[in-house]
Amino acid sequence: MAEALKDVGEFRLIRRIHDLLKREGGVPPADLTVGIGDDAAAYKPKPGHEVLITSDSFVEGRHYLPRYVRPRDVGRRAMVANVSDIGAMGGVPRYALISLGLKDETLLGDVEEIYRGFLEVLNPFGATVIGGNVTGTQNDVFIDITLIGEVKEGKAVRRSTARPGDAILVTGFPGRAAAGLQLLFRSLVPVENPLATAYIKPCHRAKAGASVAATGHASSMIDTSDGFLGDLGHICEESGAGAELFKKRFPVAEDLQYAAELLKRDPLEFFLGASDDYELIITCAGDHVSLIRSAVARACEGPVSEVGRITTKAGKVELVMNDGSRKALTLKGWNHFR
Amino acid sequence: MAEALKDVGEFRLIRRIHDLLKREGGVPPADLTVGIGDDAAAYKPKPGHEVLITSDSFVEGRHYLPRYVRPRDVGRRAMVANVSDIGAMGGVPRYALISLGLKDETLLGDVEEIYRGFLEVLNPFGATVIGGNVTGTQNDVFIDITLIGEVKEGKAVRRSTARPGDAILVTGFPGRAAAGLQLLFRSLVPVENPLATAYIKPCHRAKAGASVAATGHASSMIDTSDGFLGDLGHICEESGAGAELFKKRFPVAEDLQYAAELLKRDPLEFFLGASDDYELIITCAGDHVSLIRSAVARACEGPVSEVGRITTKAGKVELVMNDGSRKALTLKGWNHFR
Repeated sequence: MAEALKDVGEFRLIRRIHDLLKREGGVPPADLTVGIGDDAAAYKPKPGHEVLITSDSFVEGRHYLPRYVRPRDVGRRAMVANVSDIGAMGGVPRYALISLGLKDETLLGDVEEIYRGFLEVLNPFGATVIGGNVTGTQNDVFIDITLIGEVKEGKAVRRSTARPGDAILVTGFPGRAAAGLQLLFRSLVPVENPLATAYIKPCHRAKAGASVAATGHASSMIDTSDGFLGDLGHICEESGAGAELFKKRFPVAEDLQYAAELLKRDPLEFFLGASDDYELIITCAGDHVSLIRSAVARACEGPVSEVGRITTKAGKVELVMNDGSRKALTLKGWNHFR
Repeated sequence: MAEALKDVGEFRLIRRIHDLLKREGGVPPADLTVGIGDDAAAYKPKPGHEVLITSDSFVEGRHYLPRYVRPRDVGRRAMVANVSDIGAMGGVPRYALISLGLKDETLLGDVEEIYRGFLEVLNPFGATVIGGNVTGTQNDVFIDITLIGEVKEGKAVRRSTARPGDAILVTGFPGRAAAGLQLLFRSLVPVENPLATAYIKPCHRAKAGASVAATGHASSMIDTSDGFLGDLGHICEESGAGAELFKKRFPVAEDLQYAAELLKRDPLEFFLGASDDYELIITCAGDHVSLIRSAVARACEGPVSEVGRITTKAGKVELVMNDGSRKALTLKGWNHFR
């Protein structure tokens, strides 16, 4: 019979996690001086590099529905979100700390699967889990990840440094995950459908982010975790600038177009709105667009679309329609307490 | 009327937190290159130092009862636990990331108070909050803190390096917080009672830990967050050693003695068992005991008691009673899934 946490207890759970990490987690990096199992972990930072730190939490029922997402994919998605944040600064992920809030009935096997999901994302970077903790919750299972990365000194790319006149680039096809979730909700597609997969197994662009940062020519960068418009909004707000976007240049995937018809929605809602894909928005001087494109292409597949321009109109994002008319867009991302 | 999170929304909450941090959080350190508000924070690590990282979570109803602990003290306690972990490695806290899981009905003012609690602990170190996130939960309010510290290269003190023959020292009076909680449960004392205060407003010994590590003469160190016996057990297990403890040398506080009588319990249960105080257990060669004592005394008040010795009997902890007889003690700390 499948063992639940109330049967095995905290210490056996922790031992099982440690064993799994040893077996499936790759070799501990040479600069790690104290690994998992002490009051704190310790490592020697790489000379000439800055330390990057991000954290993100995921709550069952809010950030994912166990009905659609299996434990391994829950872990995978949570780690992708964090790796994406490190990548959007131009960094490389190194060390993760995991806090889990679990119920008495949570199955030990499911916790192991969540960890396998973490490792699926960390292992390609040689990144390792170096600590964390587990705690009991009554109702809300949560995962909180802190991810440490590194970036060459002075090479981190911020969201606050876009300049008027800069081109706005975006990787991939934002909005597909959001459409996939709606299709799943309405039972219109099986989980194997590519849009459903975009929701269940999102990709990050962290290698592209590091490659872009290395050029030194991105003026700002952010991932689309709050949705394309929400995150472009963050760039504008933090940079004291605005943006104009050209509708006809939006990379709207063919299957997104089709799904929008099926769902009787405008595909732009998915492209612009809150979604669960982790693409990158990059701004750069017009002269450097092709350089940035090549940097992305060296790291990953998929298009890089130039969708607009940074303007001087602080806080304003305008959409230029195909007939040349203009529409003001409202900046809003995902709000957890509506 | 007091505003709840559902009234103000996530973005206004975040803005209020940022404002509070700017106002009450001290000056951002010079080595911080990207502060709060980007995909990740960034800082330049100090040359010749290792990076320390720890994280700990607190769930309402499991780790604290809002009936006894006000929001500011909830924040304070959560941060004390993390600072204590950095201190138990011999390090100094620098940067914190905070993940909060909050309910729609959580009051904005309470969240601000939780943050004030964090700052009360961080400010004396010039340590700063550099990131985090808030998310909604249905039932379980949680706080997950990741704390980054630093320690001179090679000076981190582990739990796995105690040697047979070493003296076992402990700071302060372990067990007082546990007794305080029991007194509160039974409404035997008001919250102002010193034992209740030990539970509600625990202290850390991080400065003592750093001072001890700087001597280079502690063979191992740990904080008592799993209780004296639980954490001595961690030292023994990780060091492949055992311990003998002398009952007559235990620093059992006078008020703990009195509380135990009131509660009809053996004071040793409180001293040895799970508690919520953050004292340090330090091992060192007999020759270095007075050096370690002075190192602690330079950093904080309160006694340092030599309570026993590390032995070769791996995994065994024996209690030597006042009449010279011996009792085997069972190693167990706090188990979240019993």
